[in-house]
Amino acid sequence: MGSSCEEYEFLSEIGLSSSHNLGNYVGGKWLGNGPVVSTLNPANNQPIAQVVEASLEDYETGLKACEEAAKVWMQVPAPKRGDIVRQIGDALRSKLDYLGRLLSLEMGKILAEGIGEVQEVIDMCDFAVGLSRQLNGSVIPSERPNHMMLEMWNPLGIVGVITAFNFPCAVLGWNACIALVCGNCVVWKGAPTTPLITIAMAKLVGLTVQQTVSARSGKTLLELSGNNAIIVMDDADIQLAARSVLFAAVGTAGQRCTTCRRLLLHESVYEKVLEQLLTSYKQVKIGDPLEKGTLLGPLHTPESKKNFEKGIEGGRVLTGGKAVDGEGNFVEPTIIEISSDAAVVKEELFAPVLYALKFKTFEEAVAINNSVPQGLSSSIFTRSPENIFKWIGPMGSDCGIVNVNIPTNGAEIGGAFGGEKATGGGREAGSDSWKQYMRRSTCTINYGNELPLAQGINFG
Amino acid sequence: MGSSCEEYEFLSEIGLSSSHNLGNYVGGKWLGNGPVVSTLNPANNQPIAQVVEASLEDYETGLKACEEAAKVWMQVPAPKRGDIVRQIGDALRSKLDYLGRLLSLEMGKILAEGIGEVQEVIDMCDFAVGLSRQLNGSVIPSERPNHMMLEMWNPLGIVGVITAFNFPCAVLGWNACIALVCGNCVVWKGAPTTPLITIAMAKLVGLTVQQTVSARSGKTLLELSGNNAIIVMDDADIQLAARSVLFAAVGTAGQRCTTCRRLLLHESVYEKVLEQLLTSYKQVKIGDPLEKGTLLGPLHTPESKKNFEKGIEGGRVLTGGKAVDGEGNFVEPTIIEISSDAAVVKEELFAPVLYALKFKTFEEAVAINNSVPQGLSSSIFTRSPENIFKWIGPMGSDCGIVNVNIPTNGAEIGGAFGGEKATGGGREAGSDSWKQYMRRSTCTINYGNELPLAQGINFG
Amino acid sequence: MGSSCEEYEFLSEIGLSSSHNLGNYVGGKWLGNGPVVSTLNPANNQPIAQVVEASLEDYETGLKACEEAAKVWMQVPAPKRGDIVRQIGDALRSKLDYLGRLLSLEMGKILAEGIGEVQEVIDMCDFAVGLSRQLNGSVIPSERPNHMMLEMWNPLGIVGVITAFNFPCAVLGWNACIALVCGNCVVWKGAPTTPLITIAMAKLVGLTVQQTVSARSGKTLLELSGNNAIIVMDDADIQLAARSVLFAAVGTAGQRCTTCRRLLLHESVYEKVLEQLLTSYKQVKIGDPLEKGTLLGPLHTPESKKNFEKGIEGGRVLTGGKAVDGEGNFVEPTIIEISSDAAVVKEELFAPVLYALKFKTFEEAVAINNSVPQGLSSSIFTRSPENIFKWIGPMGSDCGIVNVNIPTNGAEIGGAFGGEKATGGGREAGSDSWKQYMRRSTCTINYGNELPLAQGINFG
Amino acid sequence: MGSSCEEYEFLSEIGLSSSHNLGNYVGGKWLGNGPVVSTLNPANNQPIAQVVEASLEDYETGLKACEEAAKVWMQVPAPKRGDIVRQIGDALRSKLDYLGRLLSLEMGKILAEGIGEVQEVIDMCDFAVGLSRQLNGSVIPSERPNHMMLEMWNPLGIVGVITAFNFPCAVLGWNACIALVCGNCVVWKGAPTTPLITIAMAKLVGLTVQQTVSARSGKTLLELSGNNAIIVMDDADIQLAARSVLFAAVGTAGQRCTTCRRLLLHESVYEKVLEQLLTSYKQVKIGDPLEKGTLLGPLHTPESKKNFEKGIEGGRVLTGGKAVDGEGNFVEPTIIEISSDAAVVKEELFAPVLYALKFKTFEEAVAINNSVPQGLSSSIFTRSPENIFKWIGPMGSDCGIVNVNIPTNGAEIGGAFGGEKATGGGREAGSDSWKQYMRRSTCTINYGNELPLAQGINFG
Repeated sequence: MGSSCEEYEFLSEIGLSSSHNLGNYVGGKWLGNGPVVSTLNPANNQPIAQVVEASLEDYETGLKACEEAAKVWMQVPAPKRGDIVRQIGDALRSKLDYLGRLLSLEMGKILAEGIGEVQEVIDMCDFAVGLSRQLNGSVIPSERPNHMMLEMWNPLGIVGVITAFNFPCAVLGWNACIALVCGNCVVWKGAPTTPLITIAMAKLVGLTVQQTVSARSGKTLLELSGNNAIIVMDDADIQLAARSVLFAAVGTAGQRCTTCRRLLLHESVYEKVLEQLLTSYKQVKIGDPLEKGTLLGPLHTPESKKNFEKGIEGGRVLTGGKAVDGEGNFVEPTIIEISSDAAVVKEELFAPVLYALKFKTFEEAVAINNSVPQGLSSSIFTRSPENIFKWIGPMGSDCGIVNVNIPTNGAEIGGAFGGEKATGGGREAGSDSWKQYMRRSTCTINYGNELPLAQGINFG
Repeated sequence: MGSSCEEYEFLSEIGLSSSHNLGNYVGGKWLGNGPVVSTLNPANNQPIAQVVEASLEDYETGLKACEEAAKVWMQVPAPKRGDIVRQIGDALRSKLDYLGRLLSLEMGKILAEGIGEVQEVIDMCDFAVGLSRQLNGSVIPSERPNHMMLEMWNPLGIVGVITAFNFPCAVLGWNACIALVCGNCVVWKGAPTTPLITIAMAKLVGLTVQQTVSARSGKTLLELSGNNAIIVMDDADIQLAARSVLFAAVGTAGQRCTTCRRLLLHESVYEKVLEQLLTSYKQVKIGDPLEKGTLLGPLHTPESKKNFEKGIEGGRVLTGGKAVDGEGNFVEPTIIEISSDAAVVKEELFAPVLYALKFKTFEEAVAINNSVPQGLSSSIFTRSPENIFKWIGPMGSDCGIVNVNIPTNGAEIGGAFGGEKATGGGREAGSDSWKQYMRRSTCTINYGNELPLAQGINFG
Repeated sequence: MGSSCEEYEFLSEIGLSSSHNLGNYVGGKWLGNGPVVSTLNPANNQPIAQVVEASLEDYETGLKACEEAAKVWMQVPAPKRGDIVRQIGDALRSKLDYLGRLLSLEMGKILAEGIGEVQEVIDMCDFAVGLSRQLNGSVIPSERPNHMMLEMWNPLGIVGVITAFNFPCAVLGWNACIALVCGNCVVWKGAPTTPLITIAMAKLVGLTVQQTVSARSGKTLLELSGNNAIIVMDDADIQLAARSVLFAAVGTAGQRCTTCRRLLLHESVYEKVLEQLLTSYKQVKIGDPLEKGTLLGPLHTPESKKNFEKGIEGGRVLTGGKAVDGEGNFVEPTIIEISSDAAVVKEELFAPVLYALKFKTFEEAVAINNSVPQGLSSSIFTRSPENIFKWIGPMGSDCGIVNVNIPTNGAEIGGAFGGEKATGGGREAGSDSWKQYMRRSTCTINYGNELPLAQGINFG
Repeated sequence: MGSSCEEYEFLSEIGLSSSHNLGNYVGGKWLGNGPVVSTLNPANNQPIAQVVEASLEDYETGLKACEEAAKVWMQVPAPKRGDIVRQIGDALRSKLDYLGRLLSLEMGKILAEGIGEVQEVIDMCDFAVGLSRQLNGSVIPSERPNHMMLEMWNPLGIVGVITAFNFPCAVLGWNACIALVCGNCVVWKGAPTTPLITIAMAKLVGLTVQQTVSARSGKTLLELSGNNAIIVMDDADIQLAARSVLFAAVGTAGQRCTTCRRLLLHESVYEKVLEQLLTSYKQVKIGDPLEKGTLLGPLHTPESKKNFEKGIEGGRVLTGGKAVDGEGNFVEPTIIEISSDAAVVKEELFAPVLYALKFKTFEEAVAINNSVPQGLSSSIFTRSPENIFKWIGPMGSDCGIVNVNIPTNGAEIGGAFGGEKATGGGREAGSDSWKQYMRRSTCTINYGNELPLAQGINFG
């Protein structure tokens, strides 16, 4: 369950050294005057390489450079900005396999998911190129003669992106690709435990100022925790549901914000679905994420392993429930039978632990789905149009992502990604998410010689 | 400068008593178990009538009633909700003059503005009726075969609206009309000093739960302070500019959030513009806001009068500068010559005080405009297309409202109203402001029998 | 089955005389120098009143007046135009019952449908009022520095509307309400057999120039014939389907362009659905459309009665099949068993005749649905999400209106109404249909001093 | 003024032979059973290469193959279709210079314009990739409970594109890129005189069925003639105007549909603008379009040369006016002083002939601009906001392209390209032009168990 040293040789293909890497990219140069840290392989907790972090001075230098760049960048016509993002996408495309491999190595997710994550950034680049000609404002009819009303969208200036360990590439991609075509410069602070992928991306992503110390920002777009449920109705396709639950609960070792943690089963299919799941869970191959056939890699850190153990308290273990002995952060995929009132069910956990719950009616299932503080993702499995349309309507799921017959995880970039309630309310990626990276002005231009007032007011 | 008692007789036409009024409308009934307060006429600080406020129990009862109503209301089809808002608009239209008169009496603004404000609510009703058939979600192409991606907009449930004394009707109208067609119930807390207009509106506005104690809410849409500038360029139409400044600085006695407080004059027209303004300022008729010809009514409260006095410290008085002796809260319209660095220039003031500042270049004027913490409204007077388009572009005004050749105040409802920075970032009234009163769900429906994953991932 | 003379007394309430009515409204005056014609009651073919049609000179005078009016009207700000349409809607609302009654009397549809049709015009007015603040153009990012790209929508000038006898009010409403807020003047030519309703509407609709001779136009929006099918799948709610077919095939005596003429039944439910239909068909009350309980009024003209007889040739009559003896144009509601290849099935017929056809698979049913030249409306009854989403997708119905579990007729105004293929391709009423009443300009404004060319071309 | 033979060697780089080329691409194979034709170099009227055209049978085979392909292609998810268009764009990008050179060689436009035209197709590919995730339909609020209204956009199936000689690549790109991501297969018929560029593009554009015989289609999008004016107001930047007129009138040898043919000069600047133009016209280098420094290549055919001579009849020649002696189709750049009533001014001409006209007022200039049957492109040069906004408003230019301070030609792809009146009314390239390549369905889904009718009708 470890990884051999030759495995690291590919790092040089994407500009990384196995020893010393400067962690700070500013104004076209790599700097680093802060502490030296090691990045660890979660499959064996051994160092992969060293990284020199930014000092506070490096950070200040970076922000100043960014402010200057912002004034220039926001005046570059949007379609020209789009062409630069296109070139970034092409650069990533040419290194797709290496970057995916690095992601697996440093974060711990299986290779198919590592490559899929980099692909998502490439997809975002392609999407953003088209978007660069469609950041449209509006011409709105004015109630006053010889007046024109315009809704204009202008850049914010600098956009800071702080990404977590679980999606170090994709979340940058969602934000940076769009922020860039919108005319902003981007300051990126990657997760402290995935510095190599941060550096590798920045080497390809020329327009971000990359930082390894904290940044702060004014306007915020929050993408916080999830505590996501899958509902299986009595008329569901059981096989489709079971396969989806497996991917949603075990994929990425349960460390996605869209991971399924609560499985709500109609009483009439409760036994049948669990039976299928127990069979699949026993066949899940645990091991080196870079190895073919592995479905469950290590958790990202030793701390995650401890949280896993807390997360199984208070319920009845149906399968799994134990950490795997040895050097890496491996745990067993786990299903727990538990009451929906249990405290542990209300909190987010980043581990492959699934809570199984029973319900009697559609309304009850929706109520349980909506009963947690988080509101990110949710799925129903059903063959009834009535259930489907109620589920996506005003009395249905209160989440930002509302799926039917697919898992809670695995969103496409064309839609808006994000959730309500404690999840934060922000939206990333597709739809009109780009508006969050711009400021809106309602402009009224009087091109006549009179001064008529709105609402027909006569003053003076 | 006071108002005679027969003046209050029209109150009975809109369901108000000159003595005792219950201040709390819940579930179709008027209640009031809290303290009894008097509402005062700002033109003479004498009581107009008494109002019984809500107790904490009244408030709890109200919210419970609202929660029940919300479940029903959100299931009423949107166009049917629109038809009810249409009827509200018709009810207001039939009482336009009385309501406008009450607004003037209790708030202190001149009658033309009082009527104009009620008209704005009626306009919002008409607008919202059409909107009720256009609260459109999207069908987004999915990258997976036999999948459909929908972006759905569903109601939030309950929307709380807290309004200030200066626009007790219009701000309710912007929010409630749209919140209602979006499928929400509305809890309205009017300003403590304008309870009569609050009650009168609620008597016509059936679907709000009206409250006179504080409410709290989750998702917030803030519309805060303004500190708005008008820039006059060397090529401006001076007459148009001077008339606009008069309306923007003296209208509503300077108590609009869009009131012009900073007048930035190009050095080449500095003297000429001020000369015109001093002439007009001297002709402004101060007095009873209900009287024909009055341009400047009283400030809303005696406290406002004290703030006025603070606001003129540190500069050179060009005209005005004194409070008017007598029983009401009257002050003189005032222009102050001052440096743009003076502390008093950075803060919001609700009074007819205007700071005159001199500049040399377009870029300098924009920099001064953008140098305050607030970002609500701003205007430029110019005849140059280059100035116009730069002003509304990325290097121009950083406000939410960006005008050309019209004053900072007097927005139309068709655009989005609101501002950036300390102003809060919310948007009300037109454009896609309705989205703030709804929650967004990205829905993906798999109607096939396969489970293809996004980004081409192959799992298990 | 006739109607008594007192029945006509209400005509005076909407400005009509039972004898002589001028048929031509131009520049605020009623004219008529053409032939005098009688309008007939289809329930007894007796005259209701006389109408003086326009002469060719009247028509020329009308168009000239319209051209002058157009120049003024297009410069009235759109929201002001909206307010006038709002007043038209209020005028119709106050005469709803009388107008509905006149529609029934002159056209022959039952009273509930007559009133429903006028209600639709009122709904259109309300919708158009909101739309008058949302006729939005776009601000599109330019690839050139200091350039701004705008997509502007401007009025066409004059819009001619030619309406048929079957929806004399609603079709005017769809077109005129939107054409008016878009800034056009409207020339309306009503059907020759429904002049009274045309005159009554014009008396309330001030801004149309109403004409009773032919008009011609440049840009055209065609709404032509339909030949609409309802598909009933094996998993359908049979009762819901049968009630829908009754309304779709017998409503308005089969004279809607959205009338269902082809009933495609899955072989497994063929007998059951027909059985239910035969039972309901026998209970349909035929008679005076103004009488309570009547479901089937007369056809509009004696010619329609002859066409009915042609339409039943070549198949097996399951119910009905005969004209009703007597003075009016009454026929029996009819179901015919026939092959989908029969020539009569490919043509449009305006009568309550329904062709019943059998199919085996979803794909076969879609193929039959799509096999006629017309492409207006279509419905499927099913409980399967897979059928629903395939039906509305690229391999499903090729019609402009694609329904699920509702009849082919009875569209809402919020959507776009119209169809493909021989139906003409136009779209009326909601969605972005308003764009058809305007001309689009792509405007590029260079506000700088340089001349950069698109696609990076360097010339001279 | 000829071109040497080595010049043709680069043809092999893009898959062309200098002798025999099959002109018909169907189902992955190159065919040709029709007549053999020569393609000529317009600079010397000597053959470049031979092409075998399609026979009628080839055409039928092609259409059949296309029908089969269409069924498959429309079911490929749109973002996957977008990825294929992205690859087409990359293939073109890698051959940009060769394709641009071939365009110049075969069509006759100068090299900078040849390369610019291919670049436009590449831009369209990039734009279409992003669009493939944004071909959005709408979810529209229904007035009926438990109903959902969707506006869906589905592919048409097969789209035929017929291109003219003057923009053999760009017009294909506008149409094919969007038609493809919309889910259509494309049949392309290039111009008979530019078969090589047609074949070269098809060798890179895998999804079109390329044809050299006529095709026909149902729904049409017409992009016809232009007769475009530039207006120079008294307050214009004269230098900017003169340079723009040069590019607009002489560029592409006056053979663009957006070529400027009418120059409307305010009387106060008439002499000054013409003086500048006469100076520049005399410096225009005429010659081999592939040679550096050439601004004016040959007309496309000897027939064009004859039309040029007709176009200068009836006016006074200010400069130019003669064809150039020798083997190619060269003519002099020409300015003619003429009355706006002259018949020759109302017709389209494809040659570098410019008619100079004088006017006194803005309104007169607009009237002349709008007085021709065509309505494609138009420009004004002015520094007045009033002129600018009137020009783009209801009383301004009636063209589809309305420019300010830039030439009539050189549109960006982000906007909609096309014009009104005799120009045909179609719109290509950006904005919502994609809707013309799809069919719209208004879908209403009843997912409840009741049958409420629209407009509140109660039937049966």
